[in-house]
Amino acid sequence: MAAKRIGILTSGGDCAGLNAVIRAVVLRAAALGWTVVGIRQGTHGLLVRPPLVTTLEPGACGAEMLRRGGTVLGTTNHGDPFDYPMPDGSRCDRSAEVIEGWRMLGLDALIGVGGDGSLAILRRLARQGDIPLVGVPKTIDNDIGLTESAIGYQTAVAVATEALDRLQPTAASHNRVMVLEVMGRDAGHIALASGIAGGADVILIPEIPYDFAAVTAHLRSIEAAGRSFALVVVAEAVLTDEGRPVRQGAGSYGGIGHYVAGRIHALTGAETRVTVLGHVQRGGAPTAGDRLLASALGVRAVELIAQGRFDRMVAWVNRQVGDVPILQAIEHYQAVDPDGAIVATARGLGICLGDAPGLGA
Amino acid sequence: MAAKRIGILTSGGDCAGLNAVIRAVVLRAAALGWTVVGIRQGTHGLLVRPPLVTTLEPGACGAEMLRRGGTVLGTTNHGDPFDYPMPDGSRCDRSAEVIEGWRMLGLDALIGVGGDGSLAILRRLARQGDIPLVGVPKTIDNDIGLTESAIGYQTAVAVATEALDRLQPTAASHNRVMVLEVMGRDAGHIALASGIAGGADVILIPEIPYDFAAVTAHLRSIEAAGRSFALVVVAEAVLTDEGRPVRQGAGSYGGIGHYVAGRIHALTGAETRVTVLGHVQRGGAPTAGDRLLASALGVRAVELIAQGRFDRMVAWVNRQVGDVPILQAIEHYQAVDPDGAIVATARGLGICLGDAPGLGA
Amino acid sequence: MAAKRIGILTSGGDCAGLNAVIRAVVLRAAALGWTVVGIRQGTHGLLVRPPLVTTLEPGACGAEMLRRGGTVLGTTNHGDPFDYPMPDGSRCDRSAEVIEGWRMLGLDALIGVGGDGSLAILRRLARQGDIPLVGVPKTIDNDIGLTESAIGYQTAVAVATEALDRLQPTAASHNRVMVLEVMGRDAGHIALASGIAGGADVILIPEIPYDFAAVTAHLRSIEAAGRSFALVVVAEAVLTDEGRPVRQGAGSYGGIGHYVAGRIHALTGAETRVTVLGHVQRGGAPTAGDRLLASALGVRAVELIAQGRFDRMVAWVNRQVGDVPILQAIEHYQAVDPDGAIVATARGLGICLGDAPGLGA
Amino acid sequence: MAAKRIGILTSGGDCAGLNAVIRAVVLRAAALGWTVVGIRQGTHGLLVRPPLVTTLEPGACGAEMLRRGGTVLGTTNHGDPFDYPMPDGSRCDRSAEVIEGWRMLGLDALIGVGGDGSLAILRRLARQGDIPLVGVPKTIDNDIGLTESAIGYQTAVAVATEALDRLQPTAASHNRVMVLEVMGRDAGHIALASGIAGGADVILIPEIPYDFAAVTAHLRSIEAAGRSFALVVVAEAVLTDEGRPVRQGAGSYGGIGHYVAGRIHALTGAETRVTVLGHVQRGGAPTAGDRLLASALGVRAVELIAQGRFDRMVAWVNRQVGDVPILQAIEHYQAVDPDGAIVATARGLGICLGDAPGLGA
Repeated sequence: MAAKRIGILTSGGDCAGLNAVIRAVVLRAAALGWTVVGIRQGTHGLLVRPPLVTTLEPGACGAEMLRRGGTVLGTTNHGDPFDYPMPDGSRCDRSAEVIEGWRMLGLDALIGVGGDGSLAILRRLARQGDIPLVGVPKTIDNDIGLTESAIGYQTAVAVATEALDRLQPTAASHNRVMVLEVMGRDAGHIALASGIAGGADVILIPEIPYDFAAVTAHLRSIEAAGRSFALVVVAEAVLTDEGRPVRQGAGSYGGIGHYVAGRIHALTGAETRVTVLGHVQRGGAPTAGDRLLASALGVRAVELIAQGRFDRMVAWVNRQVGDVPILQAIEHYQAVDPDGAIVATARGLGICLGDAPGLGA
Repeated sequence: MAAKRIGILTSGGDCAGLNAVIRAVVLRAAALGWTVVGIRQGTHGLLVRPPLVTTLEPGACGAEMLRRGGTVLGTTNHGDPFDYPMPDGSRCDRSAEVIEGWRMLGLDALIGVGGDGSLAILRRLARQGDIPLVGVPKTIDNDIGLTESAIGYQTAVAVATEALDRLQPTAASHNRVMVLEVMGRDAGHIALASGIAGGADVILIPEIPYDFAAVTAHLRSIEAAGRSFALVVVAEAVLTDEGRPVRQGAGSYGGIGHYVAGRIHALTGAETRVTVLGHVQRGGAPTAGDRLLASALGVRAVELIAQGRFDRMVAWVNRQVGDVPILQAIEHYQAVDPDGAIVATARGLGICLGDAPGLGA
Repeated sequence: MAAKRIGILTSGGDCAGLNAVIRAVVLRAAALGWTVVGIRQGTHGLLVRPPLVTTLEPGACGAEMLRRGGTVLGTTNHGDPFDYPMPDGSRCDRSAEVIEGWRMLGLDALIGVGGDGSLAILRRLARQGDIPLVGVPKTIDNDIGLTESAIGYQTAVAVATEALDRLQPTAASHNRVMVLEVMGRDAGHIALASGIAGGADVILIPEIPYDFAAVTAHLRSIEAAGRSFALVVVAEAVLTDEGRPVRQGAGSYGGIGHYVAGRIHALTGAETRVTVLGHVQRGGAPTAGDRLLASALGVRAVELIAQGRFDRMVAWVNRQVGDVPILQAIEHYQAVDPDGAIVATARGLGICLGDAPGLGA
Repeated sequence: MAAKRIGILTSGGDCAGLNAVIRAVVLRAAALGWTVVGIRQGTHGLLVRPPLVTTLEPGACGAEMLRRGGTVLGTTNHGDPFDYPMPDGSRCDRSAEVIEGWRMLGLDALIGVGGDGSLAILRRLARQGDIPLVGVPKTIDNDIGLTESAIGYQTAVAVATEALDRLQPTAASHNRVMVLEVMGRDAGHIALASGIAGGADVILIPEIPYDFAAVTAHLRSIEAAGRSFALVVVAEAVLTDEGRPVRQGAGSYGGIGHYVAGRIHALTGAETRVTVLGHVQRGGAPTAGDRLLASALGVRAVELIAQGRFDRMVAWVNRQVGDVPILQAIEHYQAVDPDGAIVATARGLGICLGDAPGLGA
């Protein structure tokens, strides 16, 4: 097999573990005698001229890269090349330019590390431009189908859980209701998992409609049982109880957390405090789990290229590493299943999910 | 010496290390054959009838208590007993009731663990009610004079620093300006120390007036030098550049952080993101340093009682444990010294403190 | 359904997450109106008279229990009741006494939390004594079949990975070969996963025979590539290259780590240092992942009892919680699969597993 | 003032915070328009030809350097240039070569980051070779005089404390005596501080002679009080009770820990387990405290050069940064003071220091 030159890019919001994937790809490729070219700033790096690239040397991929947060390649959200926002406010299809940028590089295959949306765009580019593409799933939201875990999710859950570990003692000392707003733009996986792991009393996620009557009834039952504080976790995508979004505009988080805290205070008189973790959940050193996952998926992505199998996404299921058609993974969008095992766990622990006070029994 | 019965209470906002103090007091007292009575909910526990008390047994003060956040005694902010907020909105001097509550307990001495404000109130109560009082300094703000460190401060700095460690890689990956709002109701110690330790580019503290011209000039110089992201730390007590507070009411944090981020975005066009750590800085396991400090101060507080020396606050200075008159400690309120060693360190590292772009040189 | 009284015990070596299981069982049972009796010190608590029991109240199972290491029930290794070591050195079948102890409690069902060996013993007791048993898998070694992860494993991997994170920079600063001995009495899962996550250069596990020629060839190739330090992870169960065990007797770890370091030094002249993590891997707060796993399995164990389904072990597979016959789980003992995905990941990263220098390519 | 070119080297055992010093020096120097040359591998870098140097650019000293363990300059222990170990086993004074190496660089001043021993050697070289030297104190042992804390110490204490946090729950679950051997080649500061912070029952340090009668009496009194486990911390420099060292040769730790565990087991029958942390205490990300300290000392070292004040060591005392003659700092070697505040704290908590059972009272 002739030595290949392959490209890799990270696309969409960054997360912990991206550098571990890049490292795994570079190390595996180097063992095969291949060269890896890093494309910087996601598809933006293929849009500008000359394309933004950097050769990734195995010697620069030491152990320290495993624990480095973010992505050494950068990733920008300039927008979908098929619907690109122009300075004058109009939209424009610039996909041909991206594909042309790809061709200028003369590479044999592309590994695209991205979430749901990014993988869909990359796949469209790949089909239009005949790019041999392998996808690697990453998103703290963990809403990509057909893989047990996407890169970055476990770390985000760990960070949010640690915040709850810190909030619980101060809540108890002051008899307060602490509200923690966590990330989760569409799916409530982070809120649900960290809420269970951190011992939350109430978890509000976009997949389960809530009303404050249920929430306050639960808080009162806690107080009636002799405990004078509570922990509430809210996913950022949760709407007001009237169904409106509370985002305060670009860069502003803290909307729904403050809203929920305000309502709880108004309805129960409880003293509330709000923490908005924000991007702390994305950055920083990945957990051991995310590093292992990223390493396994990165190695496997190179194997797929070696085998000439494209348009596929690598996936982790039950200690095994496999691969599935990208399209299929995207189509199996994976929100929290209200009838699934994790929700059942939450209810089984007596956690209020906002829908009704007594469902846990 | 006859066996004594002594009381201990924690007052004001909680912080990491309070339980380590309580533990140290109980263990040292037990070795002397004394009994320790915990007064719950700060001075509130002396105001209600019967007083809220609990006997603290050495057997219940194991190693796990060292790493437990918050305070097992609770602490409420019902208000200054000398100026107590009544349900009808009026204010009332209820100090006599608190002193009467103290007398009902028949204890030999009181250890009061509190910040600046709490120690002032406890001292006033002690003088009025003839209470043999020893003070132990605690506050994440570290603004109590004559002690190098107050309990809880080191942990708050560690938590804020860790947040910066997580924000930096995601800032770098996305070319963003990250704004971290940290606690510090009056003093900027947390912001300053964590900003230095976490590698911030801009640190805004209440002790140093700032203007956005200086901040944006600094951010532009960073960009000119080829770095496309920045980290900004803001103490919650910082005002707008027009001198107004941005607090959003009880329980609402995030005001000044969002304000600063908004202004930076407006002035420079930079993409900004905001994290508001909130009470995460107060709760949770104390650092080793805070545990050692709390243990040393707790043991010493009991020694002072054994020696019959009251109206004094225990203090830590340069690996030594000493004690000073409470009044003196309060009078030496310790804000950040704009001409001190830590500010000099920040300037020496080229960090912008908002006052002028080129001061670092 | 009549209210039940169920028992729970933890058996074998402790690990992080046991208290999270206990908490989940108690909270779920309480919601059903059931009572949970904790049996202390494993089967030993059923052997002594009166049996060692404690009622577990839901009010005592707050969020702080999730992060508490060890097991509140205790667990002792007095030995297999079917082959019990007597003071005079003889062995004795005391299973009838254990079963009698169980009967004295008059409970409706038993949840046994244990590893491979403990579950086998509990199952034998259950069959002999007609005990309605549900098993919950826990072991840092992660060698129980038919569940993706056993409680405690993820935390052990996280602790070992963190040690590597700390060893790598000092190795690099001093040009040393650092040897980390991790737990893993029979299986090499901890060594393999932490070695990958922490960036090890060599990982020795009991499932893959090694020789020092391969190890030293790999270390020399690293040096030839310009890197002057290396990280080596060894599972405690690994034998000398001549197939002898290096355990130094009860309570003594550090045998194989020191042996490997000594041989490497002798063969290559490299300066080596050894860290033996020992029980640090067992204790302490569980990771978010272990807490979620433990909570899900604990809730599910109670559901099985409610459904009258016994002799089964709860299991986690691909985000789902299920159950399998205990016997089947035991029979599918799960060592590291030399042809599996994790070993392939290690080889793909160029990690030497001791068997041959060039297998990674 | 003309732009200077200054050198910096790190010498002796590495520790957390060295890179934070280097960064601070580079950033402060850059603001003054100076250049910083990094001398690699300690004095070894001046011994070889050409000298091992690297220019340190401020652009490469970002926030991530603060949390990077080890030293980017490397540090080797080839030995004292005044008494250099030659290949043939003889000793040789090679100081003139080192000084000549320094002269070849043509630098204006040298910042030497080292412990006690390294600073003494550097000072001797400086005097002999007329090198304008400023010293920065670093050592996890914290035994350098006239500075409250040396760089690396706080991190080592934090790591050892965290190990105790993990050992305590497993000790309690299994009724074991856990022995943790920590670093401290001459002084017991790490053992003492981490033992207090982690809740140890027994702490053995080289400064306080111990006997096993005292230790076992203390362990028995714990058991008599109803607690069935204990934590023991031993500094590596502690000798056997007969005054012999237990080091097992280069690279071998674990001697004294295993010895103490063995004796305790023999004398009390308690089940013991041993953890030998080793170099985990040196490496890894520094605590916030060590980063602040390192930054402050690094900035100040450059100021001293700007002021033309040499032969001085920068120091931290009570939130202030100052400087003292190097010679004076070395002469005030700072072992644990058996009559000092920290030992008093330990005794006050009832911790056994091995010298007598009842001293705590």
